Amino acid sequence: MSRKITVAAAQVGAIDLGAEKQRTVQRLIKLLHEAAGRNVRLVVYPEATLTTFFPRHFVGSQEELDKYFEHGEDITQSRDVKPLFDAAKSHGIDIVLGYAERTPDGTGYNTSVYFSAAAGKVISKYRKVHLPGRVEPFEDPDATNQLEKRYFKPGNLGFKAFRAPGLVAGAVKQAHIKDGESSNGKGDPIMGMLICNDRRWPEAWRVYTLQGAELLMFGYNTGGHMAHLWGGKSMPPEQAEQEALFHSRLVQQANSYMNACFSISSARCGMDDGKYNLIAGSSIVDPEGHVVAEAKTSGDELVVAEIDLALCRQGKERTFDYGRHRRIEMYNLISEQTGVVEPELL
Amino acid sequence: MSRKITVAAAQVGAIDLGAEKQRTVQRLIKLLHEAAGRNVRLVVYPEATLTTFFPRHFVGSQEELDKYFEHGEDITQSRDVKPLFDAAKSHGIDIVLGYAERTPDGTGYNTSVYFSAAAGKVISKYRKVHLPGRVEPFEDPDATNQLEKRYFKPGNLGFKAFRAPGLVAGAVKQAHIKDGESSNGKGDPIMGMLICNDRRWPEAWRVYTLQGAELLMFGYNTGGHMAHLWGGKSMPPEQAEQEALFHSRLVQQANSYMNACFSISSARCGMDDGKYNLIAGSSIVDPEGHVVAEAKTSGDELVVAEIDLALCRQGKERTFDYGRHRRIEMYNLISEQTGVVEPELL
Repeated sequence: MSRKITVAAAQVGAIDLGAEKQRTVQRLIKLLHEAAGRNVRLVVYPEATLTTFFPRHFVGSQEELDKYFEHGEDITQSRDVKPLFDAAKSHGIDIVLGYAERTPDGTGYNTSVYFSAAAGKVISKYRKVHLPGRVEPFEDPDATNQLEKRYFKPGNLGFKAFRAPGLVAGAVKQAHIKDGESSNGKGDPIMGMLICNDRRWPEAWRVYTLQGAELLMFGYNTGGHMAHLWGGKSMPPEQAEQEALFHSRLVQQANSYMNACFSISSARCGMDDGKYNLIAGSSIVDPEGHVVAEAKTSGDELVVAEIDLALCRQGKERTFDYGRHRRIEMYNLISEQTGVVEPELL
Repeated sequence: MSRKITVAAAQVGAIDLGAEKQRTVQRLIKLLHEAAGRNVRLVVYPEATLTTFFPRHFVGSQEELDKYFEHGEDITQSRDVKPLFDAAKSHGIDIVLGYAERTPDGTGYNTSVYFSAAAGKVISKYRKVHLPGRVEPFEDPDATNQLEKRYFKPGNLGFKAFRAPGLVAGAVKQAHIKDGESSNGKGDPIMGMLICNDRRWPEAWRVYTLQGAELLMFGYNTGGHMAHLWGGKSMPPEQAEQEALFHSRLVQQANSYMNACFSISSARCGMDDGKYNLIAGSSIVDPEGHVVAEAKTSGDELVVAEIDLALCRQGKERTFDYGRHRRIEMYNLISEQTGVVEPELL
C-alpha cells in the first residue's frame, strides 16, 4: 500500500540584521502560495526563520536581544507571524517553523513547531537539544561568534515522535485496531523534528526512529565559513563552503539510510548583511539515503518532491529491523557517559 | 604534534568453497610482504578471511561446518594460520584478522583479533555484535542464504577500545603522567574493531569513540546482489552492486565524520565459485569523512595511506566535543528499548 505525500523544503535566502519581521513573514507566505499551487501538503521552513541568525552577534542589551525572540505560549497568535499560520490553514498545508522562543519565565529556546492544517493548531513542539557554539563571545571584535549556548538553554522536550493527521489517504485509525494489534506502519505518518546541529548527532535520529519515525524534518543556519574558521588548516572560503555542504549532505543521507526514514532539510542561506555566508543545499532524502530533490539556488526557493512513506518499510523490516538486530546490552555507555573516557596509557 | 602511521587495507578477492586454507593464508602473506616493502605498520584483513563466505550455504553436517572455523583459544597457534602471524611479527607489522571462531565449549563467533608486532601477541579480540541474516534457511533451494544468525552467537565482548603500542613516535607513557592528568590524545593510538554489518549501526561507532577511539577497523563480506534480492523493487545486478557500494561507503564516511575518527575497511570481494558476487571498495577514510585511499580492483589488493591521527583532534575538540555537547538525559531509549514502539494511532 503506497502512502504518498507531496512535501517541500521552503529554503529562505538572506535576512539582514535590521529586516522587518513582517516582511520576512511575507516571503514565507509567498513560498506557501507557490506550494499550494504545486499540491504540496507539508512545508518545512528553516531554523530561526524569522530573523537574521543573531547568535553570530554578541548582543549586550536584553531589550535588543528580545526583538529576535517570539514571546508567549502560542506562536500562532504572535502578531507578526499569525498571517503565516492563517495562510497555512486556509491552504490546508501543514508547516514546520523554526523560531527563537522566549518562555513566560524568560528562558530562551531554539524551537520548531509542527502546525497541522487538519487539526488547526500546533500539534508538536521541539526545542533544539544539541546547541553548538559558546557561552562567551570571542575577544577579537572581528571574529564571527556562535553564541547559541549563551542565548538558549538545551531543549527540554526530548525527541518526541508524533503522528500528523490527514496527510495520507486511508490511514488506519485507532478505532479500527484491536487491543494488542499493531498498525504495521499503516497509520497516520510518524514524524519528528530536529534543528540544525542535531542532524550531526546519530543519537537524535535513533531516538526518533525507535518510535517508528518515517519522516524527520529540520532547518539549519550553517556558516559556509565555519570549516575555514574552525579548521585545523587554513582553507579558502569557497573550499570551506564546499566542505560545509559536504558534511551537511553526508549526515543527512547516512542518517536517513541508517534510520530507514525520509528527511527534509531546509536552509536559511545566502549572504546576510552582505558578509555572513550561510550554505544552501536544502534537500529531500529517501530511506535508502538518496537525494530525491535539492535546492538549485542560495535564495528563497521551494524544493518539492512526492514521497512514498511505504518505501521506509524495506529498511525497517530488513537491514534495520531493530527488534531483531539491536543489542542494547552493548549500548549502555551512550546514555550513561557524556564525555570521553580514554583507556589507560600503556 | 603529528601522529603519523602508514596503514593498509588488505583486500582479498574470490575464495571458492573448496579452497585450501593454507593457500589462502599464502595469499594473505603475499599482501603482507608487499606491505612491508611499502613501510606499512598496520594491515587490516577482511571479515572471515580464511574461507569462502560460508553463511551463504546451509551446511547440515557439524563436521563439514567445523572446517570453516578456527578452534581453540589462540588463533596465532592455529596450524594453518600461524605462518601469517609469524610473518607479521618478523616484519614488525600489526594485523587485524577476521575469522570464524569455535570456542572450546562449542560456541561459534564471527571474530576479529588485533595482533601487535611490538607485543608479539594478540592484544584485543572482538566478536561481531550485529549479526545479519536468519536462523532458518530459505525453502527455495536456489535462494542465496545469509545464515550468520544460525552459525554464530552475537558477540559477548562489547566494543572495547584498546591502545596499540609502538605505532606512533613519541607516544606519552603512563609513567610520565601524574595522577589526574589526561594524555590529551598523545598516548599510544586508541583503536577499535567492528565487523561488516556493525558499520551500519551508529551505536557501535559511538561506544568506541566515547572511549576516545581514533581509528576503527573492519572487514566485510557484502553481497553485491543483496539490494537486488532484498529490495522492494527489482533492480538489475549491476545497479544492485552500485547500491551496495553506495551504502557501504556512505556509512563509513558519515560515521567516521560523526565520530571524528579514521577508519579502514577491508573487503572480501570478487566472484566466489563463479557466481556469488561480493562488493569490493576497501578504503581508508579520514575524520572529516573524506576517502583518502580506495581499492581499484575487486581482487587481492593492498590499499595504502599514511594517516595522521592528530587530525582527529579538530572534530573531537570542536563539533564533536562530547563533553560539551552530548545530552545523555535524552538518549535513554537507545539503551533501554530494543525494537520500535510507535505512538498511538489517532
